[in-house]
Amino acid sequence: MEAFEEAYKKSFPFWKDISENEREYLCRHSTRINYSKGTTIHDGTDCSGVFFIRSGCLRVYIMSEEGKTVTLYRLHAGDMCMLSASCVIQAITFDVLIDAEEDSECYVISSSAFASVSESNPQIKIFALELAVTRFSDVMWVMQQILFMSLDKRLAIFLSDESARLDSDIIPLTHEQIAKYMGSAREVVSRMLKYFSNEGIIESSRKEVKILDKQKLRRLIL
Amino acid sequence: MEAFEEAYKKSFPFWKDISENEREYLCRHSTRINYSKGTTIHDGTDCSGVFFIRSGCLRVYIMSEEGKTVTLYRLHAGDMCMLSASCVIQAITFDVLIDAEEDSECYVISSSAFASVSESNPQIKIFALELAVTRFSDVMWVMQQILFMSLDKRLAIFLSDESARLDSDIIPLTHEQIAKYMGSAREVVSRMLKYFSNEGIIESSRKEVKILDKQKLRRLIL
Repeated sequence: MEAFEEAYKKSFPFWKDISENEREYLCRHSTRINYSKGTTIHDGTDCSGVFFIRSGCLRVYIMSEEGKTVTLYRLHAGDMCMLSASCVIQAITFDVLIDAEEDSECYVISSSAFASVSESNPQIKIFALELAVTRFSDVMWVMQQILFMSLDKRLAIFLSDESARLDSDIIPLTHEQIAKYMGSAREVVSRMLKYFSNEGIIESSRKEVKILDKQKLRRLIL
Repeated sequence: MEAFEEAYKKSFPFWKDISENEREYLCRHSTRINYSKGTTIHDGTDCSGVFFIRSGCLRVYIMSEEGKTVTLYRLHAGDMCMLSASCVIQAITFDVLIDAEEDSECYVISSSAFASVSESNPQIKIFALELAVTRFSDVMWVMQQILFMSLDKRLAIFLSDESARLDSDIIPLTHEQIAKYMGSAREVVSRMLKYFSNEGIIESSRKEVKILDKQKLRRLIL
């Protein structure tokens, strides 16, 4: 209970505005869950709850009937996810899937508890909706990338984002995994990586991609 | 002024909850604007205001640097648009473009007036955010269509949606226009229309598409 209270106090701007009872109620309906890498946390069919990520990384994505996936965004420590509790926000009529991309620890607030407290507190509703709209912005960015941007540019952005996030020149992903993140086909990504390789921008092995020339990579993005 | 009041009373669920002064203030900062077909109403660079569509049809879309466009959704009489007033909602960090697809009449509430009244009324904020999240759902649908659905299915859905909207078997659009709405290339759409034509599903001329066999068209969608 205290761990929940501690985390929520820091992360919820509305925490000080709701009653002691309501705070207790939300903590009482929270669960601490550990997901191992690769687990599907939310498959879009039910209302799993409001996720608060404590550590690790979750991938939020959509999937076609044939199993093709497109990553919408990823969530890291400190992030929250409302789309997993889409029943709380009626205006959300689509479903997403969520995987644990690394071993992850989450605090999960039950959807019904969150909904009931937000019913009497407009500030919570505004917080939840603003969070959803922020994701809308993320998704629009992904959409622009996919629809309008050439693959070399997208791949260069992906590699340099990953490198920045990991604070390393080595990106420990297979071609298959990179393709999956980019919503592209493995063959297409492999061909482009080979091109980058030939240009001396990267060095690619079965399990990882190593960035050799950051300046050249950056030039592809501009 | 009275026309604004009349329309807002019907459409804004929060209208009765705000003060007489605030209602007057919103009406005083409203403008009635007529746009002729083809005009760009909002080019994404400034905060044009909250649009309330009285008649006609607006197309909301995104555009690549090379001028390729993808329609996100259309707005008809009675609809409202918050994305044209993205400055009101901080969580919106992307821009859209809006064209008048037909001669259209709009009431436009100035962004700053709307923002200032919503600042003291959480119900307005919730209304605006919910509207934005509803569009998020629309956009996710478009994205799923574009990313995952085969062109025959997408084209069949487009034609039967248009036919239902116009309540007519004749869709008065050129191949070029259809391609534009679908975020596809003209040649690709023409080829598919020719295929539909060969199948006896439609009859296509330079200026319009006529649906001949609704059942067959529907079977493509399922």
